[in-house]
This record gives sequence, C-alpha cells and structure tokens, in this order.
Amino acid sequence: MPDESNFNTIDTDIPEIKDGEVLVRSVYISVDPYMRGRMSDAKSYAEPYKVGEPIIGGIVGQVMASKNTRFEVNSYVEGRMEWAEYNVSNGSNIRRLKPELAPVSTALHVLGMPGLTAYFGLLHIGQPKEGETVVISGASGAVGTIVGQIAKLKGCRVVGIAGSAEKCEFLTNELGFDAAINYKTTANLFEALKDACPNGVDIYFDNVGGSVTDNVMKLINFQSRIIICGQISQYNLDKPEMGPRVMDKLLKTSSLMKGFIVSDFAEHNKEGLVNLTKWVQEGKITYRENIVEGFENTIDAFLGLFRGENIGKQLVKVADE
Amino acid sequence: MPDESNFNTIDTDIPEIKDGEVLVRSVYISVDPYMRGRMSDAKSYAEPYKVGEPIIGGIVGQVMASKNTRFEVNSYVEGRMEWAEYNVSNGSNIRRLKPELAPVSTALHVLGMPGLTAYFGLLHIGQPKEGETVVISGASGAVGTIVGQIAKLKGCRVVGIAGSAEKCEFLTNELGFDAAINYKTTANLFEALKDACPNGVDIYFDNVGGSVTDNVMKLINFQSRIIICGQISQYNLDKPEMGPRVMDKLLKTSSLMKGFIVSDFAEHNKEGLVNLTKWVQEGKITYRENIVEGFENTIDAFLGLFRGENIGKQLVKVADE
Repeated sequence: MPDESNFNTIDTDIPEIKDGEVLVRSVYISVDPYMRGRMSDAKSYAEPYKVGEPIIGGIVGQVMASKNTRFEVNSYVEGRMEWAEYNVSNGSNIRRLKPELAPVSTALHVLGMPGLTAYFGLLHIGQPKEGETVVISGASGAVGTIVGQIAKLKGCRVVGIAGSAEKCEFLTNELGFDAAINYKTTANLFEALKDACPNGVDIYFDNVGGSVTDNVMKLINFQSRIIICGQISQYNLDKPEMGPRVMDKLLKTSSLMKGFIVSDFAEHNKEGLVNLTKWVQEGKITYRENIVEGFENTIDAFLGLFRGENIGKQLVKVADE
Repeated sequence: MPDESNFNTIDTDIPEIKDGEVLVRSVYISVDPYMRGRMSDAKSYAEPYKVGEPIIGGIVGQVMASKNTRFEVNSYVEGRMEWAEYNVSNGSNIRRLKPELAPVSTALHVLGMPGLTAYFGLLHIGQPKEGETVVISGASGAVGTIVGQIAKLKGCRVVGIAGSAEKCEFLTNELGFDAAINYKTTANLFEALKDACPNGVDIYFDNVGGSVTDNVMKLINFQSRIIICGQISQYNLDKPEMGPRVMDKLLKTSSLMKGFIVSDFAEHNKEGLVNLTKWVQEGKITYRENIVEGFENTIDAFLGLFRGENIGKQLVKVADE
C-alpha cells in the first residue's frame, strides 16, 4: 500500500509555450485505480512510472495560451498530462471538449476512459443478452456504475458487489441495480450471491479479484464471460496470491475469461463516445462524482481509492471552471 | 484415480433390431481423457455417467444388419455408443464413413472428435498468426499432436510439453515440432520453456493444467490466448487445487483464457472435417495410433491415459475390419 511518503511535490515556473503548443491549466485531475499498476516494475501493458518523474494521468483543463490553431484560448481539453497545475501540450495528447454536450468533468469518467472501459468490456467482450445475469465487483466505482447501467439498458439482471451500505443503496436506489451486496458485512458472500442470482451468473465484470471473485466463479453458467477489468484487491500484494484454480471451471462451462485495457478497442472509441453521450443526454445513464478540492489533496484522493472511500468517480478539483 | 474395481463387464444377448435400426459391431473403441470428467457428479457440460449404466463413447463399427435405408450392411459408421461388442442404433447417433478417403479408425481421432477439438480450439479460439509461438501441453496425445501440426501449417513456432523422451522425440522428429520438453525430467520447466520460447508465448493450448500451466503462464505475451481444452492433472482430485491466481496476469497482458468443448462449434463441423481430410490426404498432417487388442482390455486402455502411456491416439481394437 503506497502512502504520502512515496510522493514528492515540487514548485516550478509556469513554462513558456513554443509554436504548436498550448498551455493547459488543470481544472479536474482524475485519480484511477489502474495507476497503482504503473507504480511497479511488473511487466504490464503500461510502462511503469519512473521514480523522480511526474505522475501522468487523465486531466481536464482549460487552454490559457495557445500557439496551436486547433485549440482556442479558454476552451476545454482532456488528455493524459502530468499531475501539475499547468501543462504544456503540443496537441497530440489532448482532445477538445464540447461543454454544451455535458459538464467537462464527464470527460474523465462517463464520457472518457472509465466510460469507454465499461462500454467495451461489457458490450464487446461480454456481449450481454436480454435476461442474462450480470454481476459486477467494485460496482460503485467509476467503471462499475456505468457497466451496471448499460447492462440494465440491455435488459439484464444486474447485481453489484460493493463495500458499504451507502454504496449498495446508491446502486439499487439511484442506478437501478436489481440487487447489491455489501461484501464487508455479508456473513456468507457465496450464499448472498446465490440468492441474488437465482439463474446463475452469465457475465461477471471484475474490478476486484481475490476471494470476491472466487465466490462469483462458483456460480458461473455455461458459456459465461468473465471480464477482468481490474484486480484492486491484488495491486498492493508483493507477489500473486494463491487461489482456487479456475481452468477446470472454465473448461466445464465453456466459459471465457478475458483481461483487457481500454486501448485494445481504440478503433471503436468514436462509437463508444457517441452512444455514451446519447445515453447521458437521454438520462439513461447517470453518474456521481466524488470531488476533493485542491491540488495538494491529489495524492490523498488517489490513496483513498484503495481505502474504498469513493462512490462514483473520484476527481480532484484544482481550479474553477 | 479410478481403477478396474470401478467397472463391471456383463454378458448379454445380441439384440434384435426393429424397423429403422441397425446392428453395429464394434471394431475400434475410443478411450478419451474427457470421459473421466463424466465419472463425477460435478456440474459440467456433459451429463455424468450413471452408476450401473454402460459407458458411452466414440466407436467405429461395421453395420452387420440394417432395417434403415441410410446404412448398408457391411458399411462402416462412427458414433457415440455403448462400450459393447454390439450396439443397436436408430441412425441418429452415427455417421457413415468413407473408407476410401482414410482408414476408418481415423474417424475416432484426426478425422473425428479429437481432430475437430484441435481444429476449433487452435483456429477458432487461438487464431494463430504466422511467426507466433504456440505451446501445447499434453502434446503427444490425440488432440495435442494435431494442434501442433496445424500450428506448423500456419507458420508458428511450436513447442510441445510431454511426459517421456520417446514422446518428445516423436514430436520433434516425426511431427515437426520446433522443440519438445519432457516435464518429468526437466530440472526447471520454467527455464526450459523460456529457452524454447525466446519470444514468449502467444498461444497456449492446455490439456494438462496444474504446475505445467503455471510455468507457461509466466511467459505469456500481450494479447495471448490460453485455450483450455483439458486439465488431465486435475481430473482425479477431490477438490480444485490452489494455484497462483491468473486474473492479474490476464489483465496486464490483455489476454484471453477460454474453456471449450468441441460441440460449441458444431455448426462448423463440416468445414473442420473438410480441411482436416485435405491435410491428411496431402500428407500435411500425420498421426500415430496406439492400439490395444481385445474388448476385455478397454478399461485398462482407458486407465492408461492417466498413467501417461499413450503416444498419439489410444484405441481398442475389438474386431477385425
């Protein structure tokens, strides 16, 4: 488990921009569970962060100065930039936002990476069919909340697993989940899942891993699909945990287990954003933001992800819009 | 581990056939690892065998009497029938064979269920690309030998894992595998695999499971495909073994793990048999049969599968062709 001592904050001058560049003032900084994976030398899809170099992550910002004709001063952009109050971009790592379509902060969740992650994982890998049962772990997070709502749109029974009564109420009362299970207080998670999934589990969207996943795996149906989006219970372990082998279960049920990263589906980004935007505008998908104010609180907000504090998308508001 | 005491052989009269039926004399009986899975109450794709009822499996036989116009007397058929010297069929569970295309026994391996299993698993799930590395466990068995040869046809580097020096020589000398590893005598399977797979593993076709699979999993590449066809190391365990969790590895490599059964792809059976027949006729795929003679040796031949005795397809010859 990382702590504040793993991070360092420094003061620098606001850089000058050259031809083709823009100066972006951070407005919202996104903190995401996947970033923990980059704080490790383990082989992964993402290059590890280098010690002494700035953390890079999703940021929504405002263009304060521009020597790039594609980006107007005062307009809003989103992209992967350094955890800093100001960034310089040559335009290749940012996209323009349309504040008239939705609040600009949504570019960091439902209309950004977490939304596309939910969309591709559930629809492209999971391929839900009407009447199927979808179980989601880490259901109250930025990705899980969207997965569940898309699954409801597709006519599925949706069961969320989350870590507090408040989160569970949010899932069932505000997002329309059919059931939610508080894994921290449920005496027997397997029995609770069995009750919530009388027809077994057709799709399991896993953000958590570990013993939560072990219990869901006992209930998977023939030709089920297990979508491995995150394994937050495992990120802070020194070496892989032992657990019940899953291969025989996958064999006996002809099931699929698939890890993925949102960029695997980059060629479908436009399709995803068009559909997500439509669903948000029609009120079919809603979202909750958990906003901490102040650049100096970025690290604590990030660490809070692993303490299970956030409901919905965790953001840090660095400046006024 | 089952033994002879779990089986019982009885004498009955040869049945009379009714209109629409044929009498089939068994010529070759197939013994297959998947049958162990049916000798258990565990939930699976196949109904468990019932205690006191005959074992049902793949048999090639000759039609000795026919009251069904689709099947001529003396012709050869293949189908799922009882382990018996004679079976009565109404025609729904048997298919006609063409002895002019290939020896009738091949209908139980390369031109039958094991061949189609290899074909669908490797090509439909694995989707091999030229230059990729394919590792196969249980490589010298009925399925593994065909997987490796198809992978070579597709331009892959093919590495087999098997349980004796004789099996490994067969794979490299007769079937054209690029490398073969004897997991029983190799001091460090992981190092041996690393040496044999300098570019990592893109496709792993798993018939075995357990620690063999654990070692292969350490070497999988980005977007690799792990095809779970069998788990023979696990079939005789009372409860699932513990092992290193695979989810985080699948996540970090965007990899797929898929269990399957040949019938998942039944709609493609014709395509598979056409291609396999062509490859056999062109000499691009070869095979070895391990034939035990005598109906009374069927049970021992089956048990031998779990002692790792067979190279290629294990058959029991019950009568002359």
